[in-house]
Amino acid sequence: MTVHIHDQYYMDLALQWASAIEGQTQPNPKVGAVIVKDGEIVGIGTHLKAGGPHAEVHALAMAGEKAKGATVYVTLEPCSHYGRTPPCAEALMKAGVAKVVIATLDPNPLVAGRGAAMLRDAGVEVVTGVCEQQSNLMNEVFNKFITTGMPFVTLKTAMTLDGKIATETGSSRWITGDEARQEVHQMRHTNQAILVGVETVRKDDPQLTIRLPQGGNNPIRIVLDSTLRTPLDAKVVRDGEAETWIYTTTTAAEETAKVQALEKRGVKVISLPVEDGERGIPIPQMLTHLGSQKISSLLVEGGARVNASFLKEMAVDKIVSYIAPKLVGGEHAPTPIGGFGVQEMDQAIRLTRMTYRQVGEDLRIEGYPEWRE
Amino acid sequence: MTVHIHDQYYMDLALQWASAIEGQTQPNPKVGAVIVKDGEIVGIGTHLKAGGPHAEVHALAMAGEKAKGATVYVTLEPCSHYGRTPPCAEALMKAGVAKVVIATLDPNPLVAGRGAAMLRDAGVEVVTGVCEQQSNLMNEVFNKFITTGMPFVTLKTAMTLDGKIATETGSSRWITGDEARQEVHQMRHTNQAILVGVETVRKDDPQLTIRLPQGGNNPIRIVLDSTLRTPLDAKVVRDGEAETWIYTTTTAAEETAKVQALEKRGVKVISLPVEDGERGIPIPQMLTHLGSQKISSLLVEGGARVNASFLKEMAVDKIVSYIAPKLVGGEHAPTPIGGFGVQEMDQAIRLTRMTYRQVGEDLRIEGYPEWRE
Repeated sequence: MTVHIHDQYYMDLALQWASAIEGQTQPNPKVGAVIVKDGEIVGIGTHLKAGGPHAEVHALAMAGEKAKGATVYVTLEPCSHYGRTPPCAEALMKAGVAKVVIATLDPNPLVAGRGAAMLRDAGVEVVTGVCEQQSNLMNEVFNKFITTGMPFVTLKTAMTLDGKIATETGSSRWITGDEARQEVHQMRHTNQAILVGVETVRKDDPQLTIRLPQGGNNPIRIVLDSTLRTPLDAKVVRDGEAETWIYTTTTAAEETAKVQALEKRGVKVISLPVEDGERGIPIPQMLTHLGSQKISSLLVEGGARVNASFLKEMAVDKIVSYIAPKLVGGEHAPTPIGGFGVQEMDQAIRLTRMTYRQVGEDLRIEGYPEWRE
Repeated sequence: MTVHIHDQYYMDLALQWASAIEGQTQPNPKVGAVIVKDGEIVGIGTHLKAGGPHAEVHALAMAGEKAKGATVYVTLEPCSHYGRTPPCAEALMKAGVAKVVIATLDPNPLVAGRGAAMLRDAGVEVVTGVCEQQSNLMNEVFNKFITTGMPFVTLKTAMTLDGKIATETGSSRWITGDEARQEVHQMRHTNQAILVGVETVRKDDPQLTIRLPQGGNNPIRIVLDSTLRTPLDAKVVRDGEAETWIYTTTTAAEETAKVQALEKRGVKVISLPVEDGERGIPIPQMLTHLGSQKISSLLVEGGARVNASFLKEMAVDKIVSYIAPKLVGGEHAPTPIGGFGVQEMDQAIRLTRMTYRQVGEDLRIEGYPEWRE
């Protein structure tokens, strides 16, 4: 099973086209397919939306008769089960393709390899692992969700070059420039839920909706509010622009009048039990609950305390940090991560796979906490 | 006076060679010269050390007879006065050059243009302003010093991606990796003085010397110590590796026993008067004093408070910030700039001409405060 340069070339095309369909396939992964016959591309396809045809089906339709004897490049193992659509492995067999090149096997270990096996049993040549790393990166959100049942958590911060997320008086509008803020709206569009703490709601009264020239999906707005202090006149409660879910504690939820007032305004209130001696919403339980509601991606835009509570639980999968070319000073001005702190510098949480680029006047840094290595 | 492409080409070479002589020409500027005749380079020169020949003299010596009728590219206006060496304008005239192309006139407004005028009066064609911006950037330190009498101040900080310069317990070794730390030693080599606060001396007991495989110059170690609390057994007091100057207040210096104990160990103690109601060393007066001692470049490696005191006085010319791919958290962990803080985000000190690059695992960001625009 030698990997040829041309295999990488066509798989790379399939990955590019799949990547372009960002933020609209959830809870499904992004998948792309290319069909090649006699050195010519005869069909391409990408999965567009859950419930719609898979990438292979689109590509086979485009190829028509030419699929016979062709090679199919697909970024994810063709499915082997009857779901909302018939199994793609079967469709490929019926079309008479000669060879299927796969980037990644199904990330769900319970079914991984079944589609490939079905094809091999039918006499189709199968190659796996071409551009596997890129494919895994493209579907990092889906892979996390399908293997753990919990959403992929992106922690987004924005700070000045002296490490502040606000001035000493709490002024924070705006840290970054227009371009970076627009990018954050794009990130919101590609996440199913966005999370803040009740302090942010009380202080900044944000809308947490997306404002993009081309439109987009508003994520569900999640508020961590252990003592149910979300004001009834907060924008997230009253504007009706997107769903709002408030996570609180069972103790706080005993105040049924407040719960009912929120629910009357369309807010979903979810109460979680807190263990003795703990304060605040238990993050792992909240993520499990979000997962049970089919939320596969969560963007955390918290203040210093909320961000710290996620890191303390190692509940962050990726960090995106914007740094503005500004200094505000102030011994007591807040930083991106407060609360929880390590004692010694060599106990710091290390970030890996760091990348950075300029966005307008700001700098965008992206990385993964060491536990995601 | 059209600027030709070939003029920029040769001036660029002169700038490159001059730039390479980093950190050894103080208090003189870096200067490079190229002599071209009939499309061939017949001489090159750079200024190497104060007291030694200027760039033009080296280049003329290399060119010999070929200088006659040649074009000379020099990054700084040839001098017109008898200093430690005879005026270069005269040397160029005597050598019979036909044309002199100059990047920058003398930054000292009192003598700017005199060298060029002397050449023109002798019938030499003179072109100025070729690659002027690059030349000014190369000699930003010299230009600041020669025009203001105060050293060029570089503020260097190193922080985690969550904006901390230490953990809550004060642990700060090491924030950045080997490569970044080696670069900082290179920065120390190119600065004539390095400054910290007494808190850093008391807590970290740093040597503040350079450790570079190829050797280098130790800068003078400056300690801001308004109450004379520098311990007599601090490394900067007892190791004799480099000069140490302590700036204190006239009030603190009344404790003559401590002053004498420090001076007995070779430390220079400079006391400055503090105005009523002020605390700490007056930064502008300290910089004026440093300038009077022919210190043209100062690297500030202070803690949060010292850094803030420089920014408050707008006494920073350039900022170099290293960001490590680490998170330490902690509401009370210190940030690069403490003390002084603006109230509203739109009052932030803005940085311009930002550049960044990766250094090992860290990111290096460089910029200039708005008052240096």
